[in-house]
Amino acid sequence: MHKELAIGIDLGGTNIRIALIDSSGKIKGIRKQLTHAELEMAQILENMADGIIQLLNEQKVKTEDVTSIGLGAPGFLSLGSGVIRFSPNLPSAKETPLVNILKRLTNLPVYLENDANAAAIGEHWVGAGQGVDNLLCITLGTGLGSGFVLNGKVWHGSNDLAGELGHTTLFPEGLPCNCGRKGCLEAYVSATGIVNRIQIALKEGRESSLKNLFEKQEESLTSLIVYEHAERGDRLAREIFEETGRYLAISLANVLNLLDLEMIIIGGQVSKAGDLLLRPTIQGIERRAIRAKYYPIKIVQPKLGDHAGIIGAAKTAFDHDTG
Amino acid sequence: MHKELAIGIDLGGTNIRIALIDSSGKIKGIRKQLTHAELEMAQILENMADGIIQLLNEQKVKTEDVTSIGLGAPGFLSLGSGVIRFSPNLPSAKETPLVNILKRLTNLPVYLENDANAAAIGEHWVGAGQGVDNLLCITLGTGLGSGFVLNGKVWHGSNDLAGELGHTTLFPEGLPCNCGRKGCLEAYVSATGIVNRIQIALKEGRESSLKNLFEKQEESLTSLIVYEHAERGDRLAREIFEETGRYLAISLANVLNLLDLEMIIIGGQVSKAGDLLLRPTIQGIERRAIRAKYYPIKIVQPKLGDHAGIIGAAKTAFDHDTG
Repeated sequence: MHKELAIGIDLGGTNIRIALIDSSGKIKGIRKQLTHAELEMAQILENMADGIIQLLNEQKVKTEDVTSIGLGAPGFLSLGSGVIRFSPNLPSAKETPLVNILKRLTNLPVYLENDANAAAIGEHWVGAGQGVDNLLCITLGTGLGSGFVLNGKVWHGSNDLAGELGHTTLFPEGLPCNCGRKGCLEAYVSATGIVNRIQIALKEGRESSLKNLFEKQEESLTSLIVYEHAERGDRLAREIFEETGRYLAISLANVLNLLDLEMIIIGGQVSKAGDLLLRPTIQGIERRAIRAKYYPIKIVQPKLGDHAGIIGAAKTAFDHDTG
Repeated sequence: MHKELAIGIDLGGTNIRIALIDSSGKIKGIRKQLTHAELEMAQILENMADGIIQLLNEQKVKTEDVTSIGLGAPGFLSLGSGVIRFSPNLPSAKETPLVNILKRLTNLPVYLENDANAAAIGEHWVGAGQGVDNLLCITLGTGLGSGFVLNGKVWHGSNDLAGELGHTTLFPEGLPCNCGRKGCLEAYVSATGIVNRIQIALKEGRESSLKNLFEKQEESLTSLIVYEHAERGDRLAREIFEETGRYLAISLANVLNLLDLEMIIIGGQVSKAGDLLLRPTIQGIERRAIRAKYYPIKIVQPKLGDHAGIIGAAKTAFDHDTG
């Protein structure tokens, strides 16, 4: 019999979100716990399994009423073997057989999906991308996550390494990126990139209402604070966001010229800057994307917010189980 | 009954290639005639139809033994309606209903395909990409054509505008491109781009064995001549080809990081420079593509040469007819 409940998990560098989700994409119950990324992966997964059991208890649902677990994880994965190869945000994850360990701990089937792909699947299933065949969903957080839906299905590529927009090159000899390369888009437009760029400008002596904070507590600068100063009219902060939009537009227009997609969903903490970021992004895309001359390009914000990943992970579970 | 012959056409800015091709991808007969791109499209298509009739006569094949015509055409197309919207290489093509006109002239079904996609289809069917599910096929000629095969099928995108690698941005404020934008990859790595870059270097006073030719007959400089001088050891010419490889690698690694493909086929006149171009291309890709760390990336030359387009166009015809 087809079961109506799945567990969707979003394993992040900071938080683990665990949700019980029905086959219409509705969240029946959810919990959030700290990842403690400094722990060994085996311990992180035990904590995760404990969280699953607690959630099921709270929801008065038995394990046998759950079809399976969909697990969204960051980094470079091998989906078929259920292994996380490497993840900058989970230092102890190194060729770790996530799926096998979690299966043993929970007695449930477990299906792995890349976290950014899970968000794309979620938004396509019951979010901003419903009914859209071809889309890109990006999450501008500490890093830049991205996932493609092509012909209505998530695109994994030949070996599950697709969707790394964050590590496409924007400037060949540009700023260093966490991945070890130079000039990656992520090094410019992620929250980290924005803070980094404003620090460079302040070091160069640019005037800004952020100067004081920078001089006294440099490490407390966040993209949210930069945004707040931009909102209050700080010229440098506004420039940085506009430049972020222009940079993002270059890479997104490249994607559109390669794949001719109908929609780009832009989410994550940085996207909360709204028009300050999105206006220059849309303007840049209109200028550079061939499609813009002939057809509409929908640049939209996500509908599921932080829940896109867990909902998409649950969809992965349902899809595997129904075949 | 399933017919064993189709006509594949490659409509280029200089030549029209017309071939009779069997269902195993074998060319039974071929003719090449000048396009005369300065003519009206109606006249170009009449000349094309005459060529088809001549080829069938030569081959002693009746129209009713041919299943249909596959027509590969350059520029921005609307495949469903069979219209060529705009093509830099065919100035008289402006919202021209290619398919309807050629259908009327030949009494055969006609199916339209983008010329670069047709080459990708051909190489995937019976060329270098046989059995490879996910590949990119690029043609470095006067411009830069490119087509994707994803999951074994050509990727058109939402509105037939996919595969425009040539018009992805390499340098945001870079050299002007024929498309009206700035810094497109095509403006650097196509034959035109190579000649343009060497002219800039010579104008800047760089020493080179090409200097004489440049000063006396600038307009006769071609990428082939640049290549010949590079082969003979000219430092500037070698530098330009190496730089071309590095530039190409940046964009190709971006494609790999987005889509995780197994193979890239690099063809066209510029690719005849061989290792001089391909070595720096491969080195750059190995450095920038995430996939390179985990899986092989096959960077190969095409097997079908100038015939990829007609063979792919014929495949398009067969595929439409068998459903």
